[in-house]
Amino acid sequence: MTYLAKIEQLNSADLAAYRPLILDGDPVGLIWRDNLARLRDHGLDLRDDGDRLIWYAPADFAARNAILAELAQALAAEGYVRGWRNEQLPLLANLHRPVRALIERAAAPVIGVCGYGVHINGTTTRDGVPHMWIARRATTKSVEPGKLDQIAAGGIPYGISVFANLIKESDEEAAIPEALARQARPVGIISYTAQTENGIRADTLYNYDLELPPDFRPHNRDGEVGEFLCLPLDEIARLVRDSDAFKQNSAVVVIDYLIRHGYLKPDDTPDYPALCRGIHRRHPQMHS
Amino acid sequence: MTYLAKIEQLNSADLAAYRPLILDGDPVGLIWRDNLARLRDHGLDLRDDGDRLIWYAPADFAARNAILAELAQALAAEGYVRGWRNEQLPLLANLHRPVRALIERAAAPVIGVCGYGVHINGTTTRDGVPHMWIARRATTKSVEPGKLDQIAAGGIPYGISVFANLIKESDEEAAIPEALARQARPVGIISYTAQTENGIRADTLYNYDLELPPDFRPHNRDGEVGEFLCLPLDEIARLVRDSDAFKQNSAVVVIDYLIRHGYLKPDDTPDYPALCRGIHRRHPQMHS
Repeated sequence: MTYLAKIEQLNSADLAAYRPLILDGDPVGLIWRDNLARLRDHGLDLRDDGDRLIWYAPADFAARNAILAELAQALAAEGYVRGWRNEQLPLLANLHRPVRALIERAAAPVIGVCGYGVHINGTTTRDGVPHMWIARRATTKSVEPGKLDQIAAGGIPYGISVFANLIKESDEEAAIPEALARQARPVGIISYTAQTENGIRADTLYNYDLELPPDFRPHNRDGEVGEFLCLPLDEIARLVRDSDAFKQNSAVVVIDYLIRHGYLKPDDTPDYPALCRGIHRRHPQMHS
Repeated sequence: MTYLAKIEQLNSADLAAYRPLILDGDPVGLIWRDNLARLRDHGLDLRDDGDRLIWYAPADFAARNAILAELAQALAAEGYVRGWRNEQLPLLANLHRPVRALIERAAAPVIGVCGYGVHINGTTTRDGVPHMWIARRATTKSVEPGKLDQIAAGGIPYGISVFANLIKESDEEAAIPEALARQARPVGIISYTAQTENGIRADTLYNYDLELPPDFRPHNRDGEVGEFLCLPLDEIARLVRDSDAFKQNSAVVVIDYLIRHGYLKPDDTPDYPALCRGIHRRHPQMHS
């Protein structure tokens, strides 16, 4: 395959089939046209405003959450929402804006809640050859079990800073000591819009690079990683391009790394500008 | 100001006022609605195809170029095209696609020819502090004279590879020896759509990072640089954000550098995702 095909594969949602959900003036989600009647049937007061949908929600935070909890439970009872997580995700325009409401994670794609994550490219040099540490996800993970992933990565819960979450995930997933994790350097984002069976995942991942000492060995503490591998970057690039070994979004984090570190060269890569732009997909009406 | 405002400033074209120009099936330019009647009046056979405009040009390369040369001369005679350069720019979909026709550079915005450039971030460390080498453009330059710019940068003429052009510009503009210039590492692109007085500049710049030895001193050979400065990166960042000292697109190349090297931090930068995406603007109907 090509790197571009990997990026396209992750951006499986047809954006024309989605309209931004506005709450308190902020775009906080993306509603699939196939879900609109269903949401209204379950009592969500969604009103048309040109290309946007405005939720006329109660002002009270708890009252909003109760409406969304009832909605999620009803959709789960119907079998439309599966894999209940018992974890609340915030509706918010971005990490620097207030949380407007909460919804059960399994039902988040129905509202198209924007998700945020942090991913660390952990690299080291062996015998003069650049290597990358990679985690194989535990076979018990609900999303893409057994796939290859960054050495540490995870969703950003509301109220924790991006960097604090990086320190936390580095410890839990790979036992990276805090002093070492603090050397991680922010290097940009990837974002994408993936179709799920009942809506969209519109995620923004904050990427960091971390150079690890040659004698460092990660080990997992939280049961989310099956094993760690340390592979030459050329081999990582080949796996990303020519196999489905990597988790889909983690593959695109690697593509971003390969662009930034000169492994992809403009003269040899006809779709170089398309790759650079393709790693940052977003619905045109979402602000950030 | 903010970094985001600098990016917005450069993207001054209203994309809704532009339609892609198709030639031999490839999008090769962007036609401003204010120019459409003018181009047709001057004999360009432009036909509507939904949101696109198809140029029914003669098959012969020389015949096409003759039509565009006549057009450019007529527009110059009317005073609509100014600053004749006596330099031909290619109409092509990207650097890896065939050239479809040529047009005088001064008239290129009228067709909205896509431009390509190469920019080098030349950095070094002084007393443990990261510095960047910056060129002040000669006061005789026709575009943004006297403004600050990367140590070496330039448009990519058709038929020269991106890397060969980097070697050439490094020598001409800053006397960087070829062996040193070859250590430059490709790190991505920026792209933007800038309104000019008679059309659009839709450019893609290929960016490279080059670490320079502490004792290296650039000097100019081609008269295009007034002086070179070596400034701490914090000072460069301040100049980009709070002044108009930098050439507009060169300022955005610096913003890209600041993102990739961790000078901008997600937790301190509410518009971080918007910055990461904003440096890659493009008309939605242009492929690459």
